[in-house]
Amino acid sequence: MGVVVPLGEDRGRGQNAVAELQALVRPEMEAVNDFIRERMASDVPMIPELASHLINSGGKRLRPMLTIAASKMCDYTGSDHIKLAATVEFLHTATLLHDDVVDESDMRRGSKTARMLWGNQASVLVGDFLLGRAFKLMVETKSLRALEIIADAASIIAEGEVMQLAAAKDTSTTEDAYLRVISAKTAALFAAASEIGAVISKREGNEAAALHSYGRNLGIAFQLVDDALDYGGRAAALGKNTGDDFREGKITLPVVLAFRRGTAEERSFWERTLQQGDRQEGDLERAVELMHRHSALEDTIVRARHYGAMAIDALAIFPESKYRDALTALVEFCINRNH
Amino acid sequence: MGVVVPLGEDRGRGQNAVAELQALVRPEMEAVNDFIRERMASDVPMIPELASHLINSGGKRLRPMLTIAASKMCDYTGSDHIKLAATVEFLHTATLLHDDVVDESDMRRGSKTARMLWGNQASVLVGDFLLGRAFKLMVETKSLRALEIIADAASIIAEGEVMQLAAAKDTSTTEDAYLRVISAKTAALFAAASEIGAVISKREGNEAAALHSYGRNLGIAFQLVDDALDYGGRAAALGKNTGDDFREGKITLPVVLAFRRGTAEERSFWERTLQQGDRQEGDLERAVELMHRHSALEDTIVRARHYGAMAIDALAIFPESKYRDALTALVEFCINRNH
Repeated sequence: MGVVVPLGEDRGRGQNAVAELQALVRPEMEAVNDFIRERMASDVPMIPELASHLINSGGKRLRPMLTIAASKMCDYTGSDHIKLAATVEFLHTATLLHDDVVDESDMRRGSKTARMLWGNQASVLVGDFLLGRAFKLMVETKSLRALEIIADAASIIAEGEVMQLAAAKDTSTTEDAYLRVISAKTAALFAAASEIGAVISKREGNEAAALHSYGRNLGIAFQLVDDALDYGGRAAALGKNTGDDFREGKITLPVVLAFRRGTAEERSFWERTLQQGDRQEGDLERAVELMHRHSALEDTIVRARHYGAMAIDALAIFPESKYRDALTALVEFCINRNH
Repeated sequence: MGVVVPLGEDRGRGQNAVAELQALVRPEMEAVNDFIRERMASDVPMIPELASHLINSGGKRLRPMLTIAASKMCDYTGSDHIKLAATVEFLHTATLLHDDVVDESDMRRGSKTARMLWGNQASVLVGDFLLGRAFKLMVETKSLRALEIIADAASIIAEGEVMQLAAAKDTSTTEDAYLRVISAKTAALFAAASEIGAVISKREGNEAAALHSYGRNLGIAFQLVDDALDYGGRAAALGKNTGDDFREGKITLPVVLAFRRGTAEERSFWERTLQQGDRQEGDLERAVELMHRHSALEDTIVRARHYGAMAIDALAIFPESKYRDALTALVEFCINRNH
């Protein structure tokens, strides 16, 4: 506790890392974007309208970049990586659409959620449409092993979401139980997105396992940093997009740590605000204050660094290359990012 | 109009037809049921609880029976038809879970819907889980063409649902527009379920096309009869499960016909009750009365017979066999059933 870790104070380094990776895979990512636009077309106008709202909302396209960079690192020379990367982004987008319905979220990435603009019903159905299109796209690659990995990830993600729903609002959730949830709901897709890069390059043994491990640990680190950022990260001030998890009563690692380290009175505060959902003016500020008192945000980042280190070590079996460097630097970005 | 068609009055014939088919594919359907139970397992207890509520709720398992009977008719000797039939049932179940959320349905097959017992959130997520498992299951068969057909059906179903959502509450929907909706949301899965029986039997040409056509037309007929039954079919009395579509403000073929054939005053009635959603005591009875006045229910069944005839003719290229007979008789069942 009390370890000083850079979060939101070393922005330059993280930003350069992702910019480097983006520059490296730019032509492929342009092809992925073209493919996404082409494949979300439908005669039913509401479908591309709703889908493009989310797909064009300025996400970083991290997951498809993993597929591209992993396949390039494995010397892939074909064109199926484009389709698989688009598949991964469709699957991710479908998940976000359904998540926003399940979490009753009003805002995402600073914009109104699709469900606020088109309704819950359309969000559920367009999510299903994108899942169908994702599977259709990946079948075109004819890579049965990649298909298996992605189909498996799709069930695991949903399983993680149900787990989270069942555990929701329980402030006494253990760190282990929380890790099981995010391993499924976030890390499984990062793992699949990375592993399929090796699989289509016919590197199914150690290299596929290494990329799976890289993606999985990167995903966990990514989610933990997300959890900390939702409470403003290390900065004491709350930004405009912070506090969403608190308002939705979500139990994340900063809450798990602050609850366990807190006094009886503090635990009552967490139970009232998150378990019973009785939130009042000033409660969010109190929550952040308690997190700082117990170094819950800092230590969430320390935990993230642990998974980040595992991700980087997993890549060590690959020979040195610009792709390996970029994937390594991406871990830094995910941990040091401040948005 | 005014043609007398048997509906609910020729029950024996229809019932025998489905009993015959059921007897014919009993061993395979038992294997399908075992498979379904096995593959809906999860460490997250809510998943099998919720899924089995719907899967064990006494559905007729029509769609997986199509896959089994079609493959047997094509002399299939392997075991992938079991997996594909289970895939089809999972996909169907996922669709029902999401449908009930989208339609805000309280009851299905005379029982409370999963969303009433476990909530909308769990229904969305368990639906996603079943979709993931469906894809995982079908990947195991390694039949890329079957994968393509099912993945395609999955997007088309969702597209049909969005189409319906966009057209919802519009009493001036044309019969053509309505047919487009049900071709996508209902008939696409019947078509896929039938066609994959030919595909795994290596009968990809005319026979796959014939089974696709059979399934598609059977699906349309099935949906039209469903629409009529929701208003009590030809019987004047309303049964205990009738009136759901009216209460949900759904535009179905009986409404399309009654609206178009009605007077200005009657059209105002449909606009008030379905378009504006202002429904009062006695409105359902009035709706049924108007449908009888304009033979809307009878003619919906006449339309269904047209598609049923197309389904039967599509099968004619197959040599005579007990499976062809059973699939032919199934069309009669779907049209003559009274539940």
